[in-house]
Amino acid sequence: MTPASMDRALTPLEELLKEKVGRLVGPTLAACEAEIDRTLASTVPLITELGNHVASAGGKRLRPILLLLCAKLSGSLAPRSVRLGCVVELLHTATLIHDDVVDQAPLRRGRPSANARWGSDASILVGDHLYSKSFALLVQDGDRAVMETLAHATVSMTEAEVFQLERKRSGITTESDYLWIIRKKTASFIAACCRIGALVGGAPPEQVDALAAYGENLGIAFQIVDDSLDFIADEARLGKAIGSDLREGKRTLPLIVTLERATSEEQDRIQSLLKSPGLSDGAIGELRALVARYDGVPYAAARAMVYAKKGKAHLENFAPREERETLALLADYVVDRDR
Amino acid sequence: MTPASMDRALTPLEELLKEKVGRLVGPTLAACEAEIDRTLASTVPLITELGNHVASAGGKRLRPILLLLCAKLSGSLAPRSVRLGCVVELLHTATLIHDDVVDQAPLRRGRPSANARWGSDASILVGDHLYSKSFALLVQDGDRAVMETLAHATVSMTEAEVFQLERKRSGITTESDYLWIIRKKTASFIAACCRIGALVGGAPPEQVDALAAYGENLGIAFQIVDDSLDFIADEARLGKAIGSDLREGKRTLPLIVTLERATSEEQDRIQSLLKSPGLSDGAIGELRALVARYDGVPYAAARAMVYAKKGKAHLENFAPREERETLALLADYVVDRDR
Repeated sequence: MTPASMDRALTPLEELLKEKVGRLVGPTLAACEAEIDRTLASTVPLITELGNHVASAGGKRLRPILLLLCAKLSGSLAPRSVRLGCVVELLHTATLIHDDVVDQAPLRRGRPSANARWGSDASILVGDHLYSKSFALLVQDGDRAVMETLAHATVSMTEAEVFQLERKRSGITTESDYLWIIRKKTASFIAACCRIGALVGGAPPEQVDALAAYGENLGIAFQIVDDSLDFIADEARLGKAIGSDLREGKRTLPLIVTLERATSEEQDRIQSLLKSPGLSDGAIGELRALVARYDGVPYAAARAMVYAKKGKAHLENFAPREERETLALLADYVVDRDR
Repeated sequence: MTPASMDRALTPLEELLKEKVGRLVGPTLAACEAEIDRTLASTVPLITELGNHVASAGGKRLRPILLLLCAKLSGSLAPRSVRLGCVVELLHTATLIHDDVVDQAPLRRGRPSANARWGSDASILVGDHLYSKSFALLVQDGDRAVMETLAHATVSMTEAEVFQLERKRSGITTESDYLWIIRKKTASFIAACCRIGALVGGAPPEQVDALAAYGENLGIAFQIVDDSLDFIADEARLGKAIGSDLREGKRTLPLIVTLERATSEEQDRIQSLLKSPGLSDGAIGELRALVARYDGVPYAAARAMVYAKKGKAHLENFAPREERETLALLADYVVDRDR
């Protein structure tokens, strides 16, 4: 599996989105990329290398794209959108770096993770540095409402990460725990990106809230699908091994619903498999077969669809415009993607 | 070794400082403690437990004390000093938690480190959460100059941490590298605490700069002494094993000067000992003997003394007052302490 293999043919929806995003916010997004590169450039080579390895590894740039589209829909792509797009992507990069250390993940987007390549120690410290840099850029921007939005989101995200770890250790996760975690972890940050875009674009308060609500629902849908892909995706396209969450002991929605629907013998079997350290390929296959038998993934997909639809409904607070249509398409993409 | 053994008799200088600090800023410092407790209280038990374990483990509270003394010397212990004292201590706590993961340290202040007790994964995530909380409190305070000061310091600190790791891996650290690292890592944060105190207290710009310069020099002296204690301290009083830095491959000033002064045979011997993974007690003893032969620790102590003196000179920008005298005593304490 090489990074090149991930550049394979885009789906028609991806093509359409790429074209629309490029036309609506392309130059500003390119300026964000340049700002990210500038920010990662350090006199300390390890910062530049490790930072670039993760930040330039073909991420979707979902967060800056949402920020920019929301800003444009709200009235203007003010020049400060560039810096703020860079801030949210760097913050996201920092969380990816730390998450991979926490999960001891060997791969990220089809390449060795930062911890696999440079060690956990370097990854922790460079992650901290990127957090600090994002904060410094945010202070330079100097907008209290934007800072409050991001402060609130990072407190929420990190709290949810710790809670997720607690649940993982206890071996119990219910659907309501799961939804609490992804709402506070993934959705709060995506909602923050949309809110910041709306603030920067100059939307009135009710539209700011509408875009934040769109982002929150989109974020929940996004994470549900992300977790489902761990059961069914094409490994080369996903850029990491199937079953990674299972191997790390993470219980996500397809498994949670399977546990609810399975017979008590099957439940015992699942619990005992999950407890075994270093899950074998055979065990992963057995768990995937059970999740397939009880329609764990279609159940999760249906839930994701509900959130995506809810998210789109909040866009009705805006007059029809191409930016609005593109945000709606993004919600479709989030539930339709295969990586 | 128990935490209780660390509460042993204070030195006369420690007694004097404790009395003065208590009289000048005692109630505000107590309010900072309460604010720290409140901030660590979370619905996620792991955050509260791990955070309290590190934050309440008998730290010196040097950073909030400096902030409060500088605020009072500059004119007033404004109510917001409480929140800002809490911010700097929590930020410091977050860096301690991450540093111990990076160094795989088993002990901190005579007790198991957070990573030893709750695992590296939990420590990374709770550290990130404390960073976020500090940032959120800082945004609540809302003072741009204070935020800029702390943003600058955290960028500097984290950059220096990565550079220190690079140097550790390369096996080469010169005195100038070493000074660069401690200036950017320890001193920049301590300088920031003093600057924030001066800003909060309402000092004019030249006095703000004077207190920041005092803090920077104090911070350099503090770190040099901290590193020297790794060679000579009483283990029970220090709260961790002697030679920890050597075991982690960190080259600090006493060793750097020893390497410069030693014969080429001794240099080779030192380099080969430092390369061996998991340094034995015998090897630590041999290295300590060489450092003793070449007066590595007295050399470092003399350097620390120069910085402490420089720091005190900056206090001359203020009229004689008890706060000024206490800050000067703190500089004496920093070079005189045995833990």
